[in-house]
Amino acid sequence: MQKASLVKGTRDFGPIQVAKKNYIFDTIKKVFKSYGFAPLETPSMEKIETLTGKYGEEGDQLLFRILNNGDILPKAESNFDSNRALKSAISDKGLRYDLTVPFARYTAMNMHALKMPFKRYQIQPVWRADRPQKGRYREFWQCDADTIGTRSLICELECIEMFDKVFSALNLPVVIHLNHRKLLEAIAIHLGFEGEFEAFTVAIDKMDKIGFDGVVKELESKNLDTSKFENAQSLLTTFDFESKQLKDLDETLTSVLATQAIKDLSEIRGYYNQLDNDIVLDTSLARGLSYYTGCIFEVKLKEGGFGSVAAGGRYDDLTEVFGVKDISGIGISFGADRMYDVLEDLNLFPQEMSKMTDVLICPMDKDVFSFALQTARKIRNNTQQSCLVYPKEGKLKKQLDYANALNAQYAIIIGSEEVEKNEVSIKNLNSGEQKNMDLTQLIELLK
Amino acid sequence: MQKASLVKGTRDFGPIQVAKKNYIFDTIKKVFKSYGFAPLETPSMEKIETLTGKYGEEGDQLLFRILNNGDILPKAESNFDSNRALKSAISDKGLRYDLTVPFARYTAMNMHALKMPFKRYQIQPVWRADRPQKGRYREFWQCDADTIGTRSLICELECIEMFDKVFSALNLPVVIHLNHRKLLEAIAIHLGFEGEFEAFTVAIDKMDKIGFDGVVKELESKNLDTSKFENAQSLLTTFDFESKQLKDLDETLTSVLATQAIKDLSEIRGYYNQLDNDIVLDTSLARGLSYYTGCIFEVKLKEGGFGSVAAGGRYDDLTEVFGVKDISGIGISFGADRMYDVLEDLNLFPQEMSKMTDVLICPMDKDVFSFALQTARKIRNNTQQSCLVYPKEGKLKKQLDYANALNAQYAIIIGSEEVEKNEVSIKNLNSGEQKNMDLTQLIELLK
Repeated sequence: MQKASLVKGTRDFGPIQVAKKNYIFDTIKKVFKSYGFAPLETPSMEKIETLTGKYGEEGDQLLFRILNNGDILPKAESNFDSNRALKSAISDKGLRYDLTVPFARYTAMNMHALKMPFKRYQIQPVWRADRPQKGRYREFWQCDADTIGTRSLICELECIEMFDKVFSALNLPVVIHLNHRKLLEAIAIHLGFEGEFEAFTVAIDKMDKIGFDGVVKELESKNLDTSKFENAQSLLTTFDFESKQLKDLDETLTSVLATQAIKDLSEIRGYYNQLDNDIVLDTSLARGLSYYTGCIFEVKLKEGGFGSVAAGGRYDDLTEVFGVKDISGIGISFGADRMYDVLEDLNLFPQEMSKMTDVLICPMDKDVFSFALQTARKIRNNTQQSCLVYPKEGKLKKQLDYANALNAQYAIIIGSEEVEKNEVSIKNLNSGEQKNMDLTQLIELLK
Repeated sequence: MQKASLVKGTRDFGPIQVAKKNYIFDTIKKVFKSYGFAPLETPSMEKIETLTGKYGEEGDQLLFRILNNGDILPKAESNFDSNRALKSAISDKGLRYDLTVPFARYTAMNMHALKMPFKRYQIQPVWRADRPQKGRYREFWQCDADTIGTRSLICELECIEMFDKVFSALNLPVVIHLNHRKLLEAIAIHLGFEGEFEAFTVAIDKMDKIGFDGVVKELESKNLDTSKFENAQSLLTTFDFESKQLKDLDETLTSVLATQAIKDLSEIRGYYNQLDNDIVLDTSLARGLSYYTGCIFEVKLKEGGFGSVAAGGRYDDLTEVFGVKDISGIGISFGADRMYDVLEDLNLFPQEMSKMTDVLICPMDKDVFSFALQTARKIRNNTQQSCLVYPKEGKLKKQLDYANALNAQYAIIIGSEEVEKNEVSIKNLNSGEQKNMDLTQLIELLK
């Protein structure tokens, strides 16, 4: 006998958890679809060369690699120089680490057949060998939507609207933080970090965690001149996303980069009147990933403490590494697992998530089974209700306990008397009300 | 630059393929749900000891093992005795090989919380390092439903009905082959193979591939006495699944085992009048897996050549290996990938699978974008139609080409003139018909 247990950092999703997960996925999917995004699914495994070198040194360490099949001894024997060499020799595949790289690989392979702009959404698990902790899993889900093949700022608007719609639908008030990489670069130059944009963004990106003083220390630790940085606090902050604030910023920064960014942002601002959620221009928003080139987004809960629940931005060279150039695009990603935890903590999942079936049919005697099965067949064929026949006769209390454990809405009780009269006794398990009726009436009721 | 390519035996599913795959999954899911099965999802990775020893020697070879993270050199160095020892030392996880073992592991871990009978369905990918060939992939999908915790033959009936309903819904006529392991054992004894049941079933299981004479040769190669086997052809064949045939078989075999099996089969037969598809009692059906103990099923296409598309059976000790005894259950599994290929070959997927959006909005000038976006918002908020704004103004032909490439049903054309009149021009892309209307009329039309 062996003890049954899970791999560290992974989870089972029982019936209720699946229902909750699908509630989030379906909400996101519905919004993606309504904006004309079409689904893509890529394999769980990618060639190791597709994955490595895309996520930085740390990312490469966190990849789950798949051991080659067959005899690995000979290759292992001749590659004992280093851990890295050994791993490369005996594993040529890895598990998907995100959805962006597989999407880029797919795009490069299918360029000839894709009609641009191509809008795809993708909701699939990804795997990372991170240290598991509350809210961080080794198998988790990403929900991405990308539009590629156009620089139109309509796409930026769509991203904002989709963030807005998803979190409205989930009753989760958020603040959409928006920035533009060119605006950030203009600010970096204004503060004296010309030519040091990457170090600057890496430091800024930590503002949430280490605070303003921490950022100053970090910059100084890299021997950067922070003498002009005293102006930073009024520049690296949140602004109302309105034309006056955009104009003021443009006048403060007086640079070509800033003007380009403000032009984009103003155009986007002009495309809508109102959102359900708040939106701010957050010039301290950096986004770690270096491939962003235009607008960037991060969505945070209005009632804080949970970090970001969605993010995204525009990029210019997603597929370049695979030999396909000049594909501009923009993508967003929802963190479904964090959203799940938040909805759970705030008790915001709809009640019906715990219902495992609609109707339980309770046969009282062995010889009523044919009638019970016939009733089940009628319900399944003529209504949308799911229905289950308790597989053993007798003991009404036991059967009703079972119905309650499943959170069923109705119990249909069938004894010999009911069969004789060609009717059933139906009990509403919420109200406790019980009455007899024939099958036609039953179907009408359940429809 | 690197060449973008897929791992051997894996596939991308583009928008149309996802729609087709979901058509199959949704059909199966709907039937499972209507019978009160609730969803379960288990992690892609399991501990290697959960997986090994469950699928036979060959199965263990076909597992995809995941390389341990961190430095594997020390452990590799001290475990160079054999390929097996090395692999065990450096990988303690593997990818899901089927859905049955994870389900057993889940059941054992959650026994205290599960209300019996527990009915779960599970639709997830599994991975096997089989040699890829047409119709055989290294990542493929299983669609399972199991009822555990009851020996009621209602469950067998439900399996038959679910096979029937799924293939009816897919317009794919099938023949449901049914047998009972005890009946097969009675036949084995009748033919002189007492005590050799496993060797007998292994040989019988190959009947489809090697024919009757091949089975005889296989049995003889194992030094079994085939002198009584001449009677086999009339006993190992398909019968109408009707009470007369059951009675005849019982009289021929005259054994306790046969009588038990016939009693089960007769009870099941008594539970229904008619199915959409054919059902036969197929006494030559063995099912390779040794854990079956009662009824077994295999579903084959009526127009043959594709092998089986679904299968299942009753088992008695699914969770025993994890220390939980006496859990009888019954499960079925649909082979979604084979079903996909069959539906594709027979051109049976519904037409609408290729529609990537419902409506394309075509803005003719830069300054109509606000109106175009407002129209899109109205459509998304007030109808179920998905809708996409072409992100760049101008060139109607190019935009209509795009609409056609997406298989959209409508193009909504908006120029300055339309904006002035506060209306749109809508073109039905199937009929070619085009007319102008205001937004209220448009919403009415699209609803």
